[in-house]
Amino acid sequence: MSKLPGTKLSRRQLLQLGVTATAATLIAGGTEFVLPPEAHALGDPLPSWNDGPAKKAILDFIHVTTDKSSPKFVPPEQRIATFDQDGTLWVEHPMYSQVVYCFDRVPAVVKAKPQLANVEPFKTVLTGNREAIAKLPMDGLMKILVVTLTGMSVDAFEAQANDWLGAARDPRWKKLYTELTYQPMLEVLKHMRSSGYKTYIVTGGGQDFVRMYAERVYGIPPEQVVGTAAGTSFGYDKSGKPFLTKDPKLLLNDNNAGKPEGIHLMIGRQPFVAFGNSTGDRQMLDYTKAGSGERLAMLVLHDDAQREYAYGPAQGLPDTRVGTFTQALYNEAESKGWIVISIKSDWKRIFAFES
Amino acid sequence: MSKLPGTKLSRRQLLQLGVTATAATLIAGGTEFVLPPEAHALGDPLPSWNDGPAKKAILDFIHVTTDKSSPKFVPPEQRIATFDQDGTLWVEHPMYSQVVYCFDRVPAVVKAKPQLANVEPFKTVLTGNREAIAKLPMDGLMKILVVTLTGMSVDAFEAQANDWLGAARDPRWKKLYTELTYQPMLEVLKHMRSSGYKTYIVTGGGQDFVRMYAERVYGIPPEQVVGTAAGTSFGYDKSGKPFLTKDPKLLLNDNNAGKPEGIHLMIGRQPFVAFGNSTGDRQMLDYTKAGSGERLAMLVLHDDAQREYAYGPAQGLPDTRVGTFTQALYNEAESKGWIVISIKSDWKRIFAFES
Repeated sequence: MSKLPGTKLSRRQLLQLGVTATAATLIAGGTEFVLPPEAHALGDPLPSWNDGPAKKAILDFIHVTTDKSSPKFVPPEQRIATFDQDGTLWVEHPMYSQVVYCFDRVPAVVKAKPQLANVEPFKTVLTGNREAIAKLPMDGLMKILVVTLTGMSVDAFEAQANDWLGAARDPRWKKLYTELTYQPMLEVLKHMRSSGYKTYIVTGGGQDFVRMYAERVYGIPPEQVVGTAAGTSFGYDKSGKPFLTKDPKLLLNDNNAGKPEGIHLMIGRQPFVAFGNSTGDRQMLDYTKAGSGERLAMLVLHDDAQREYAYGPAQGLPDTRVGTFTQALYNEAESKGWIVISIKSDWKRIFAFES
Repeated sequence: MSKLPGTKLSRRQLLQLGVTATAATLIAGGTEFVLPPEAHALGDPLPSWNDGPAKKAILDFIHVTTDKSSPKFVPPEQRIATFDQDGTLWVEHPMYSQVVYCFDRVPAVVKAKPQLANVEPFKTVLTGNREAIAKLPMDGLMKILVVTLTGMSVDAFEAQANDWLGAARDPRWKKLYTELTYQPMLEVLKHMRSSGYKTYIVTGGGQDFVRMYAERVYGIPPEQVVGTAAGTSFGYDKSGKPFLTKDPKLLLNDNNAGKPEGIHLMIGRQPFVAFGNSTGDRQMLDYTKAGSGERLAMLVLHDDAQREYAYGPAQGLPDTRVGTFTQALYNEAESKGWIVISIKSDWKRIFAFES
């Protein structure tokens, strides 16, 4: 980066770069401040989006809430944006990645507790028969979640999850699951942050699981991941070293009404922005829109069978275990001013690994 | 702020001013960047501290963990500092402020539910007899917390707490409770933040209560307040407007082992810094010190009867309901390298309102 002629930055532009208010005043007030020309290669902050109402809604919202002269200006400390994960930030079909993780952990669990081998649902999971596994009843699924996600130390869980995240590949694209994130949404996250919004994940997925990769993959630090959370117990090992054990005690079921409840517990402010993709996000969107001033609520519709997946009753397609987008939700979006994102028509490309 | 000659800022200095990594690279790389001379009036970041081992420990810790050439350098995103509140950031004697709040709310609660007037513990509280109130058993106290802190909407609670915080005064200094914050600790919070540390309150007090004033008083936003937390229930009123109700269901008892458990739940990273003042902070300090690299653990000792209060068995004084600093805790601090802050000798002044 050389000393080519650049552009002076105003205090507001500095704030948008993430400079604190005090620093921005000092910087903008005291110097001929120059941004090098490279920085202007920014251009369109949402290059993977086609022009259309969805892209326009995002850009307009950011403009009116960050422009100090706008009546809809939102002070930086109040700029909270919440994002569902499965089906909103990454692929959820045909099965939530974390559920795949739990199934993949079953052999190791059974090896440690051989008496489980002939007990359902473990017996079915060990067959590897995908169709039979997909039909397991909900209480069977819960048993698998409990034995694969709790009963070990936080450190042991993190090591196990980390190994899987670095190795397991999805059956369709043969990519690491963390590569199945939506490029258009990564651009939204980045643009929100560069506009002073604090981005949060608010997911039905396990909080500890998502925190393993959220910073690296989404740029979202662990403390900004709100998810379904179980309790832990603090204790000391024989050498006196403290550790936390993951308990099978549900503290927060971060779905449906649990989403605004989780936002209150973990953030304590009503969001200005919420993105989701299913009926499980309805309450979060309602809670977001109920705040005063300009608020943005958006829903991703999976309508692209060729490039990703198409599913959900809103399109006359069969309901699946994941991400239910009902006709009622679609109607609700229209009546409440939630904006529907069509993957097929709004997203120019879906994954970073495409061309 | 005029164009007087100033000082060039390095990328690291920009980072310390809160500039994001990307912006700092752009700024430091592309321009003759100048900070105006006014900014250097900073001088001693801890002016209310006497020179001594406590002040030195804080300054040394910040120096070695933020200097990129230091082997103990901590990357900015990992810089988490946690602070107990009662007795660490503000006065807790003779009674926790939030408990005073709950007692003060009792008449309004009894007015709405007159049948409580002749039932203990409400009957005793209504007498206003401070000595009798101080002797209420723990289960009586719990009943008072439940009826004054739950069963109303979050909005109603916030309005009630806000009214009280703006009007109630402590019996000794006749100040608002939010004025009874320790000036030396406000300086530590500020210096930590300007050194890239994210400051959190981790308190046994009610999370919703502390969040009412933490941003204004400590510069700590609601999402960085971890406290004892009850659940909420999301619902809709008759007009369809969503709201949250505070439930009498304890999710997190943020004392003792609950502090590291709460840190894991709400932050998800092991802190590098922990300040406390009682046995209830022991596990948080252990958890903090158990991490690798340089960690700072400190305990405030209330040993200044004249300017504040002196209490706790570590000084051969009677144990009280608040902030127990036992002899065992004192010994533990010595053996584990936790640094004890003596209010009497380490703090030059205690409150901002002292000239």
